[in-house]
Amino acid sequence: MALVPLLKDEAACPRARAVYDDIRATRGTDYINNIWRALANDPAQLESTWREVKRVMAPGALDALTKELVYLAVSATNNCSYCLHTHAASARAKGMTEAMFSELMQVVYLASHTNRVAIGLQVEVDERYGQPPVAGPT
Amino acid sequence: MALVPLLKDEAACPRARAVYDDIRATRGTDYINNIWRALANDPAQLESTWREVKRVMAPGALDALTKELVYLAVSATNNCSYCLHTHAASARAKGMTEAMFSELMQVVYLASHTNRVAIGLQVEVDERYGQPPVAGPT
Amino acid sequence: MALVPLLKDEAACPRARAVYDDIRATRGTDYINNIWRALANDPAQLESTWREVKRVMAPGALDALTKELVYLAVSATNNCSYCLHTHAASARAKGMTEAMFSELMQVVYLASHTNRVAIGLQVEVDERYGQPPVAGPT
Amino acid sequence: MALVPLLKDEAACPRARAVYDDIRATRGTDYINNIWRALANDPAQLESTWREVKRVMAPGALDALTKELVYLAVSATNNCSYCLHTHAASARAKGMTEAMFSELMQVVYLASHTNRVAIGLQVEVDERYGQPPVAGPT
Amino acid sequence: MALVPLLKDEAACPRARAVYDDIRATRGTDYINNIWRALANDPAQLESTWREVKRVMAPGALDALTKELVYLAVSATNNCSYCLHTHAASARAKGMTEAMFSELMQVVYLASHTNRVAIGLQVEVDERYGQPPVAGPT
Amino acid sequence: MALVPLLKDEAACPRARAVYDDIRATRGTDYINNIWRALANDPAQLESTWREVKRVMAPGALDALTKELVYLAVSATNNCSYCLHTHAASARAKGMTEAMFSELMQVVYLASHTNRVAIGLQVEVDERYGQPPVAGPT
Repeated sequence: MALVPLLKDEAACPRARAVYDDIRATRGTDYINNIWRALANDPAQLESTWREVKRVMAPGALDALTKELVYLAVSATNNCSYCLHTHAASARAKGMTEAMFSELMQVVYLASHTNRVAIGLQVEVDERYGQPPVAGPT
Repeated sequence: MALVPLLKDEAACPRARAVYDDIRATRGTDYINNIWRALANDPAQLESTWREVKRVMAPGALDALTKELVYLAVSATNNCSYCLHTHAASARAKGMTEAMFSELMQVVYLASHTNRVAIGLQVEVDERYGQPPVAGPT
Repeated sequence: MALVPLLKDEAACPRARAVYDDIRATRGTDYINNIWRALANDPAQLESTWREVKRVMAPGALDALTKELVYLAVSATNNCSYCLHTHAASARAKGMTEAMFSELMQVVYLASHTNRVAIGLQVEVDERYGQPPVAGPT
Repeated sequence: MALVPLLKDEAACPRARAVYDDIRATRGTDYINNIWRALANDPAQLESTWREVKRVMAPGALDALTKELVYLAVSATNNCSYCLHTHAASARAKGMTEAMFSELMQVVYLASHTNRVAIGLQVEVDERYGQPPVAGPT
Repeated sequence: MALVPLLKDEAACPRARAVYDDIRATRGTDYINNIWRALANDPAQLESTWREVKRVMAPGALDALTKELVYLAVSATNNCSYCLHTHAASARAKGMTEAMFSELMQVVYLASHTNRVAIGLQVEVDERYGQPPVAGPT
Repeated sequence: MALVPLLKDEAACPRARAVYDDIRATRGTDYINNIWRALANDPAQLESTWREVKRVMAPGALDALTKELVYLAVSATNNCSYCLHTHAASARAKGMTEAMFSELMQVVYLASHTNRVAIGLQVEVDERYGQPPVAGPT
């Protein structure tokens, strides 16, 4: 059970309602996920979080599906059950196949393993990788 | 300073040397990263880890660059300095531009934020996302 | 379902019962939270944990409510559902308003974001902050 | 060594320079921390992060020092060396005494311990704490 | 609810069925845990994970029970409810007494505490412990 | 650089000096690790932490070396460089061979992998493992 009320439309203040409306328009669905209804208890926070989600998840140098895959990988690593369920659905809606999901998770498992090797054995960064960054192509 | 010796070629046993050789052939470079020299203290472990890296990071339903991006996202979330340095280099070598790196990290930051919202407020999974999986396309 | 039995009063040994009694007297309630009933399976551990809770959470240079807020922030970061539920209740009982809870969590989200920036980009500590500590006022 | 260049004033683009100027004006210091110089490689990200820092860390229902303490607690839990060093300095500058710092960290240690008890033993949330939230005072 | 179907025997492909058979033969039980039924959606992954579990958890320099204890300690630290439940059962089946479980978890709690001291206060490694490894007995 | 001074003997207060003396007597060495010199800034905390270390790490149902192995596993999972260095040394001093260290770390890597499978795919606990605990032998 959430630690704050999940505000239905009629319980939300006008500022929060305006964000709900923008979510509906942007996503082309009438459904508002629970996380927005939790954030609506503080409208400034709701506005700021929604603005960031729109800005960051929009296609740019990376396409929208790749961003969903990265989001899923972080959510698995952070152990966020809520985000795994909701973003598995949105990644599938954006075209993630089961083969892609399986390969994605296997990279997550591999990095979980090899990150722990480097940390557990305290392997020092190779001299060649610890140099000032030479930026790649822009 | 690593907790085990980083084995130079001449200090590695024949089984480990064979893996070094395969790494060199596969990657087309003479350089062996420190993590392999640390794992070489236990050749069975070195073989098994290298086999998994080759299997999982090979292009499949996801291309090799996307896999590097996911690997970087997990390494940032797991706070693995070693893996961030080495895989930022390999992702750049595979074509990651600075704009892609910036967008990748912004998805990581956003998920770090919104994962914490869902966890911190203990938001329950929406009923519609907690259903038995209806697999997407294969 | 807990991995050990939650010991009711009549199932607890006398040493554990004595701690239950002290919890009741200290907190002015007859209710014993599940975590203590789990720890009661090892009375030495129960005693030691309760002694630390009393020592550390008592008001001192920081007041009791500030300590609850910090405790909540750590529990959100550690993803402890049990502790979030119980300490949200105790923080509210000590005077945490909804506005305070919202601001608290926003600091948690912000730090989750900016910690990840510093880690993900491997930003080195500014020379001025890496000096031997000059202690502040005592 | 950071994975992106730390942009000196003369290397930063005008949008990034404008943020540097606002940081200087807001904080009353000429010094710009490394994290901002790293974020400056993507000016939209720099602007958005700085706007959130200003919004969230400003005194409100919680005072500025309490917010610094919470930020430190999260940074310790997330293992962020950079943020611990910079925010220990800013917390001390805002009035954190050594006794406050010590008590703060002891709450962090205690929660690290008791969070792990609840998680490790899989203690279920007491029925009374798992009810729909009855909001406290606003 | 899992994000992928848990494949019953009749839904699993022949490669996955062969792994199920080997699990049954190796463990001397007809029961297949849910995690294997989830992994069975990608038979290569199922094979590789099962091969590693057999290789790593087999008695060697450490006996099988000690390995289960270490596995439990990591699962508690990683907050893996699934793994805590299944491996508490297998550790008990291998001879873990309640006193052993209690002491195991207390080491986990202690390390959670003292790890956080070292990290939170940014204690530098003593010069004597940061030297090149002098290997112990083999 | 630590965030608090590491107190040399002559800088420590009498209560802290008494703990230093007990550490020396208990461990049969004149050397005091940095973490104790950091904790000495708050003598009550130093006393309480040292008391717990002595109580928890003493041989009981688990021998002292097994406890060191578990401590190392948690420190690797928590990414504590300080604790990995100091406890690798103390585990080796208590008899940990290089083969034991290698197997220990492989269990840590395996659990890092399989914990992430169970979490990433949100595998539900098998009904048979989610029952009320039937305690094993005491």
